[in-house]
Amino acid sequence: MTHQPSTRLVDLELEVLAKNDLLAARNRGWFEGRGILALNLMSSPGAGKTSLLERTIRDLSSELALSVIEGDQETLLDAERIRATGCRVVQINTGSGCHLDADMLARGLRSLDPPAQSVVFIENVGNLVCPALFDLGEHSKVVIMSVTEGDDKPLKYPHMFRAADVLLLNKLDLLPHVNFDVERCIGYARQINPDLEVLTVSATRGDELERWYDWLRQRVTAAV
Amino acid sequence: MTHQPSTRLVDLELEVLAKNDLLAARNRGWFEGRGILALNLMSSPGAGKTSLLERTIRDLSSELALSVIEGDQETLLDAERIRATGCRVVQINTGSGCHLDADMLARGLRSLDPPAQSVVFIENVGNLVCPALFDLGEHSKVVIMSVTEGDDKPLKYPHMFRAADVLLLNKLDLLPHVNFDVERCIGYARQINPDLEVLTVSATRGDELERWYDWLRQRVTAAV
Repeated sequence: MTHQPSTRLVDLELEVLAKNDLLAARNRGWFEGRGILALNLMSSPGAGKTSLLERTIRDLSSELALSVIEGDQETLLDAERIRATGCRVVQINTGSGCHLDADMLARGLRSLDPPAQSVVFIENVGNLVCPALFDLGEHSKVVIMSVTEGDDKPLKYPHMFRAADVLLLNKLDLLPHVNFDVERCIGYARQINPDLEVLTVSATRGDELERWYDWLRQRVTAAV
Repeated sequence: MTHQPSTRLVDLELEVLAKNDLLAARNRGWFEGRGILALNLMSSPGAGKTSLLERTIRDLSSELALSVIEGDQETLLDAERIRATGCRVVQINTGSGCHLDADMLARGLRSLDPPAQSVVFIENVGNLVCPALFDLGEHSKVVIMSVTEGDDKPLKYPHMFRAADVLLLNKLDLLPHVNFDVERCIGYARQINPDLEVLTVSATRGDELERWYDWLRQRVTAAV
């Protein structure tokens, strides 16, 4: 995030973050006022955020009112995948931008118009670095990591794992084919963030998704 | 990269990029003066940059003088992996920073002190977004993408694929286990960047690495 370690830039970054925090606080109030649970899903590109959402919508849409804000630099591809599930969705394209911010989310929400007492999933730009610094006003930050990425990632990208409330360790189906130690990865993640909840899943094969759904149901009960 | 679409921030970003471009030009001159081929390796976290370097060093260090600049938010893990191969290496930690810039590289190079007529690999921070915008003074930008990331990534992260000179499509060994169409991915990448060279490899199993080594030898012959 620090593009040049000059005092002027650091001051401006703090100003940008402070402005973002105000807009995020307003989003937070809006969600509370409307009884909406908002979750910010963050990961590297290709860790499986969209596949997880497709599956979650398929499995839970008869039980919960769900909608999605999609963030990508370009294309409507993810929104089209979500729309194909029958779910309400809005795509935000950030252009050269590396993350969603609270202002983009507020504008996306006006267009999405999610019903009261519902769940809004925010799929951030695929980036394990920058989105960690920008509060969107969400209830929880969900970091998704795939077992193909290497078990040392929590140590190498600590800001994301420190910011997150829950880690979904995805692509369990690929575990036999890669050199990845699940326990070591979880140990590293908890070394960075002792309060981090960890769920292991395979969004494509369906392994252990019931634990993720239970986590979600508990949050919904508390928030809406 | 655009953290807030305000005029003031856009101006400042242009200023930062202009300052970076000057420092990158100086790095470029330094490389030319010393007869060094410098390559900037960029990818998502976990696409296999370090594994590719380990393997390349093992296979080519008797033939070429190689050294490495490692960029990560935190840890010395990657530098330790490279050092274990016997290769000269310097680690740069960016803290909350999302990419290497030309100034960080210049400082890293002073510490690395690579010999004349050699090759310097620069492993950027794992991020498919921000590093694309920052010229380091390298000869070529190499983007590495793994087949586990989904074949639509060139369309969704076009800035990186437009900036790159060559795409290494890695983890061919996992192709039987994932839903990934190699030809479609290459088509998307060439749609963004018609001049992009594409090499498919498996850094861990060794598939088709000879084509990467040939690409490298050609660049070395031209540069040093």
